[in-house]
Amino acid sequence: MNPRTSILLTDLYQLTMLQAYFDRGMEDTAVFEFFVRKMPENRNFFMAAGLEQVLDYLEDLRLTDEELAWLAGCGRFHKGFVDSLAGMRFTGDVQAMPEGTIFFPDEPILRVVAPLQEAQLVETRIINLLQFQTMVASKAARVRLAAPGKLLVDFGLRRAHGAEAGLLSARASYIAGFDGSSNVLAGMQWDVPLYGTMAHSFIQAHDNEIQAFEDFARSHPAASTMLIDTYDTEAAARKLIPLARKLAQDGIAINAVRLDSGDLAGHAQRVRRILDEGGLAAVKIFASGNLDEYRVRDIVSAGAPIDGFGVGTRMNTSADKPYLDCAYKLQEYGGAARRKRSEGKATWPGRKQVFRSLDAAGRLAGDVLTLEGDTRPGAPLLQPVMQGGRRLAEPLTLQAVRVHAQAQLAQLPEPLRSPVQAPAFAAAVSDALKALAAEVDSRTGMAVA
Amino acid sequence: MNPRTSILLTDLYQLTMLQAYFDRGMEDTAVFEFFVRKMPENRNFFMAAGLEQVLDYLEDLRLTDEELAWLAGCGRFHKGFVDSLAGMRFTGDVQAMPEGTIFFPDEPILRVVAPLQEAQLVETRIINLLQFQTMVASKAARVRLAAPGKLLVDFGLRRAHGAEAGLLSARASYIAGFDGSSNVLAGMQWDVPLYGTMAHSFIQAHDNEIQAFEDFARSHPAASTMLIDTYDTEAAARKLIPLARKLAQDGIAINAVRLDSGDLAGHAQRVRRILDEGGLAAVKIFASGNLDEYRVRDIVSAGAPIDGFGVGTRMNTSADKPYLDCAYKLQEYGGAARRKRSEGKATWPGRKQVFRSLDAAGRLAGDVLTLEGDTRPGAPLLQPVMQGGRRLAEPLTLQAVRVHAQAQLAQLPEPLRSPVQAPAFAAAVSDALKALAAEVDSRTGMAVA
Repeated sequence: MNPRTSILLTDLYQLTMLQAYFDRGMEDTAVFEFFVRKMPENRNFFMAAGLEQVLDYLEDLRLTDEELAWLAGCGRFHKGFVDSLAGMRFTGDVQAMPEGTIFFPDEPILRVVAPLQEAQLVETRIINLLQFQTMVASKAARVRLAAPGKLLVDFGLRRAHGAEAGLLSARASYIAGFDGSSNVLAGMQWDVPLYGTMAHSFIQAHDNEIQAFEDFARSHPAASTMLIDTYDTEAAARKLIPLARKLAQDGIAINAVRLDSGDLAGHAQRVRRILDEGGLAAVKIFASGNLDEYRVRDIVSAGAPIDGFGVGTRMNTSADKPYLDCAYKLQEYGGAARRKRSEGKATWPGRKQVFRSLDAAGRLAGDVLTLEGDTRPGAPLLQPVMQGGRRLAEPLTLQAVRVHAQAQLAQLPEPLRSPVQAPAFAAAVSDALKALAAEVDSRTGMAVA
Repeated sequence: MNPRTSILLTDLYQLTMLQAYFDRGMEDTAVFEFFVRKMPENRNFFMAAGLEQVLDYLEDLRLTDEELAWLAGCGRFHKGFVDSLAGMRFTGDVQAMPEGTIFFPDEPILRVVAPLQEAQLVETRIINLLQFQTMVASKAARVRLAAPGKLLVDFGLRRAHGAEAGLLSARASYIAGFDGSSNVLAGMQWDVPLYGTMAHSFIQAHDNEIQAFEDFARSHPAASTMLIDTYDTEAAARKLIPLARKLAQDGIAINAVRLDSGDLAGHAQRVRRILDEGGLAAVKIFASGNLDEYRVRDIVSAGAPIDGFGVGTRMNTSADKPYLDCAYKLQEYGGAARRKRSEGKATWPGRKQVFRSLDAAGRLAGDVLTLEGDTRPGAPLLQPVMQGGRRLAEPLTLQAVRVHAQAQLAQLPEPLRSPVQAPAFAAAVSDALKALAAEVDSRTGMAVA
């Protein structure tokens, strides 16, 4: 159900650069790495996500006849080059951190080693896939940490930025520890557990609110959550008491109520009391509406009797920081390490690895960013996932990825679990890497002189 | 190339509500309208976009056999209901503001009139499509207003939220007045003019920066923009002088340079002088990197000699406000007007129309929000676009939509053209509409009592 994305969903410059590489016969091996440069304000960690979609894209990489014809006719490319694209496939190797892994600035989460043209062409879509899911997983993990033990459901499809954002944010938030999503396609595609209630329009389409509740419960005897804020929240809660008795005679139970406006904590207190006094202690309270990790934390700390939260727009647009300062950069070409030195955007050269140490309690103690082959204590985080353009293993189930992500979150030291900024946890840069950077600078210093 | 989106890319509750409507035989005509509730901080207007994708979606609405089989087996729906979905098509009518139209809070930009189940099912995707493109067009229009006469290019694909966001933001920003995009697929699909330069990796893959420039120019003799900030911006500009003379002998011209880091205005001043003194007055300066309407305005006001801007992430994620507070709400069912009264989220009932008056200078003078049929002075903004599930006219070309959008921007009074908040321009609510709201309140007041 994931429609194949056109290879032409890329920046024009990838193709113009490819023609220049082609003309010049530049076809040596290139090494690119994807990393995030900076930690956004109020953030303490990132969670890697999006790898499986990148691997799908690389395995399927080819230009269709229609795309090739368009390129040939667009007036920018010569025939020899366009013909060369017809047989192009991705034949490279990929190393990556598993999805769900916690990481920090400057730590690569993906490395592509491939002939220059292949490794260059895929830049745009790789960034597009990794930055979005990583951003959403990182944000959703914060909501998870803010609401231990609460049911969390992704409600963000409608204000996600398009179809793919809606689908992939259901995936990324589930990886990060959400319990499920309202997004039916995510359920069909990945067995993400589905949750849903009813819309205000359902209540409004009925002439009578209580009739709407009864109709819904009878159509869904096994699971019904009643939206009670269309007119008057507490009045609606009171009306549920006799309805529940009536439905119970037919073996139908009301599962939960949903609050979607106003002071959620205050309404929850009053509604809980009404339900308890009416013998509906088993009916849970679910809340939604402009929620994010900050609001959820406040509601949870206030002790509001809310059992679960629908968290949408602000989570899956990462509303307080809707992008990551990330890059996919050339680190080596033709066997020589490379480095960008642009102001404020300098990068570490070469093929890198991250080693992670844990303390006695199993919490993160320190990361070292060094060169591949410079083995350090701890576990290496980048692992081979693709060789010669083919996956080395079947994709994990999303459920397995989620288990890994939860284990990763459990390794976070207490300060990093906060929704506000903690002292930064950053990888130590090894002497070997610093020495290589200095060597590249001195070489390119000569080259640009 | 726009892959059909699954109808199951929707919220679960649409389907659970549909089953309840089905069980109860609720199949009267429903009227839903899409509108934005509030103007975000620092914004003064919205620009409507996304209608054509909504109409594509409605015309193609059907469930595949695979989707129906999944629904039948998922354990939530009974056979009679799932069978009823097999033949479901969208058979309703749609009225809408043309894409590119300026609008304000509470003004509907789309109305769906259809049997209840059809009108309900399409809610999620309609919001998903309209909110995103409207958000991007509204943001991009602000960049256009901040940079009169400058070349503006969408560079946002890589950090757009997924594939569809990247593609549709190229479309929406072009509607709003951008000159083009780096997104090749947008060029193939809609003839959006394409622009591109080169990446830092192109420079780094060469052992020598000046050789990289020469290679690129020779591969693209008709159009080349040199990225000059990889190592030292001004040094690179100086190196272009002799290269340009050498290339000129072969009839090859360098079009432009691109600055992508550091103090863009300062670099532009120095680079302009270097190029001018070197006889390259015709070479233009193009800037990119973390730009939005605020930074572009500052650079333009400072008189920096920059001819064009690549504006990406912050524009197409609408980074300072990455979502609109929008809704698709039931306004009428079975001939009776409906209204939601939830705290802070009350809506105007009934089928509405917006009449717009212009002043003598052709600028916006006032909008009136009233009921359909209550004709007021000025032009009605909502127009019929679909009847019985079929478009009433072929889609406009994107170029034609862009012309309409520019005419709309020309109607904005000066204060609304500012990137910071102006006194709000809001539609006046007619007495007829207020009376209907009061009538609905009194009726539903009884119903919920």
